[in-house]
Amino acid sequence: YQSKLPNVGTTIFTVMGNLAQNHKALNLSQGFPNFKSDQKLIDLVTNAMNSGYNQYAPMAGNLELRVAITNKFEKLYNSSYHPDSEITMTAGATQAIFTIISTFIKPEDEVLIFRPAYDCYEPAIELNGGKTISVQLEAPHYAVDWAAVSKKINSKTKMVIINTPQNPSGTVFSKADMLQLQDLLKGTDIILLSDEVYEHIIFDDKKHQSACLFPDLKSRSFVVASFGKTFHNTGWKLGYCCAPKALMAEFQKVHQFNVFCVNHPMQKALADYLQEPEHYLKLSAFYQRKRDLFLSLIKDSRFKFTPAQGAYFQILDYSNINMENDLDFAKRLTIDHKIAAIPLSVFNADNLDHKVLRFCFAKTDDTLKKAADILNSI
Amino acid sequence: YQSKLPNVGTTIFTVMGNLAQNHKALNLSQGFPNFKSDQKLIDLVTNAMNSGYNQYAPMAGNLELRVAITNKFEKLYNSSYHPDSEITMTAGATQAIFTIISTFIKPEDEVLIFRPAYDCYEPAIELNGGKTISVQLEAPHYAVDWAAVSKKINSKTKMVIINTPQNPSGTVFSKADMLQLQDLLKGTDIILLSDEVYEHIIFDDKKHQSACLFPDLKSRSFVVASFGKTFHNTGWKLGYCCAPKALMAEFQKVHQFNVFCVNHPMQKALADYLQEPEHYLKLSAFYQRKRDLFLSLIKDSRFKFTPAQGAYFQILDYSNINMENDLDFAKRLTIDHKIAAIPLSVFNADNLDHKVLRFCFAKTDDTLKKAADILNSI
Ligand SMILES: CSCCC(=O)C(=O)O
Ligand SMILES: CSCCC(=O)C(=O)O
Repeated sequence: YQSKLPNVGTTIFTVMGNLAQNHKALNLSQGFPNFKSDQKLIDLVTNAMNSGYNQYAPMAGNLELRVAITNKFEKLYNSSYHPDSEITMTAGATQAIFTIISTFIKPEDEVLIFRPAYDCYEPAIELNGGKTISVQLEAPHYAVDWAAVSKKINSKTKMVIINTPQNPSGTVFSKADMLQLQDLLKGTDIILLSDEVYEHIIFDDKKHQSACLFPDLKSRSFVVASFGKTFHNTGWKLGYCCAPKALMAEFQKVHQFNVFCVNHPMQKALADYLQEPEHYLKLSAFYQRKRDLFLSLIKDSRFKFTPAQGAYFQILDYSNINMENDLDFAKRLTIDHKIAAIPLSVFNADNLDHKVLRFCFAKTDDTLKKAADILNSI
Repeated sequence: YQSKLPNVGTTIFTVMGNLAQNHKALNLSQGFPNFKSDQKLIDLVTNAMNSGYNQYAPMAGNLELRVAITNKFEKLYNSSYHPDSEITMTAGATQAIFTIISTFIKPEDEVLIFRPAYDCYEPAIELNGGKTISVQLEAPHYAVDWAAVSKKINSKTKMVIINTPQNPSGTVFSKADMLQLQDLLKGTDIILLSDEVYEHIIFDDKKHQSACLFPDLKSRSFVVASFGKTFHNTGWKLGYCCAPKALMAEFQKVHQFNVFCVNHPMQKALADYLQEPEHYLKLSAFYQRKRDLFLSLIKDSRFKFTPAQGAYFQILDYSNINMENDLDFAKRLTIDHKIAAIPLSVFNADNLDHKVLRFCFAKTDDTLKKAADILNSI
């Protein structure tokens, strides 16, 4: 039985997660917190179940939650999305991304992505017969060469995918970046998929440049967000996307037959929880402290780094250490040194290897200290 | 922005659900219970959240739950699925179906379905460039004409989709049906998608004929099931599918990039809850009583019926009542008589109209009585 993805393997997150478990290694590979989520939010889910929110939500999502999301966009970005027609709740940001790509990408369409890139874009493009066009971001700063981007945009380009703050590199697009992108897309009908799942995790007083801040981008954009990343509940699988009505109407045609709707009691709980914006406003400071703790502890190790600008991953450069390639090194670290990380080459075209690994610092201070002890010993 | 489904509208369940709400009608349209789910199960979710099951589940699903599902298949069907490689948890049965179709259906592939058919199959086939081939089941018995099926199977046929007990008709495939199907597919490499979300809701001592009971079907089948339908929690969006390892490996290549994994605390709760098979074994008797109550109350109305053999929908024939078409009648019933149902023509090719409506009887006795009062007054 041949499928449409004969050459796709198992996602690196499953591979490294399993290896970590089998070797009882500290797991800094897959991106999830190892501390408890807010008891208040958990209690709100219990309340929602006990108050009867156990049947199908509306296809677009619980209305109170969509209104709460509207309020967030107004508060943070002074940008409006209509709760009735411009917001859809999804089973995690991943399902939003998969559905957006499946809705629009036809055979021969080109989709431009920035590498290293989170690993769910390319297989979704391939599944739909599209072609992935890559622009490589170069270590250590992972800045965008917009002239290079410009050369890769042509009449076949159907979609551009950006991800800021970026996973895995931790880089953040500046306002100048977004303006360059806006200029490049002007006059085309290219769709922008703006993966902003780390919008609330951004450091050193940088400001998140959401696509919705730029009118000529917003009009062509899906903005994708995640509650799992924001409220420390990656296992609840709740995300959403926003887009102008005409784009969202097409998205919902596919969404309704992919999942129809998503978990209702948790949507209701999130609607209540979002009434206090403090719950997401405090996130950057929370994670910046963790990043700084982790980096201060390993500053004298053999690993080199440029501090992440956003998201909850830190790239470490191990070029001082003699290793053939990053995947092998990640495996050796897990098996011999009991610490798991993600090799970055899997996110690059042709497995381009910058000799860097990605460590997730969404961990308790205790875990970060143990991790630093191991890294200092290498 | 043209999508790949320019002509697809909004699912009938959203259309009728909204109409019911706007007109304060009794809602017997979309298939969900209006009574409380088991408090024990709800408490298990709270326990799971409080015990820390809030981060990503494994991609295939929580292992305890996969083992519990294995046990169910062994107990009920004496059929084995390996929990490590032959079961995947999904965001409702709908996501399983969408993902199976997306994994295998390429442009020009033909997929055979039985009509009236649940409305998520065809758009998923179309989205992937496939062609839907229909076999019509004829009212009032909705039995299969296997000679007609045989004529529609050819070298382009990539997949057959069956659904037993069937939504919307309430018909149930017999052992003879399944053997006919097995014969027809013998020697081909056609994949069978067996949508068995109502496996535990089957009446009058009929036995559910799961595809996994027939070795030559099982080897080519995805069996799709739903916890929402089984445990009265359609809003939790938890289902799963089972298939032999080789098929499941291809499925997971796509699943991992569609949703990656599904709600973790609720998976853990279901694993615990499934320890008592009584929870699903009692379901047929529970719903048979509701079907019988509803039908006894409307036996002198102008609606004619053949009792549903399974699932929780009853088809009512209104040919005694002078109405142009079933969609109009459904709307009139909702607006003027304050009771919403689903017109069956939307599930047929070319909107073939048998002058029947579908009523969901997964409702409190009180609601069923109110519904009967309305229907008796027409
Ligand atoms: C869906 S598993 C991957 C989680 C994640 O966002 C990451 O580790 O990058
Ligand atoms: C996903 S909404 C439809 C629910 C259902 O199974 C039905 O009403 O047939």
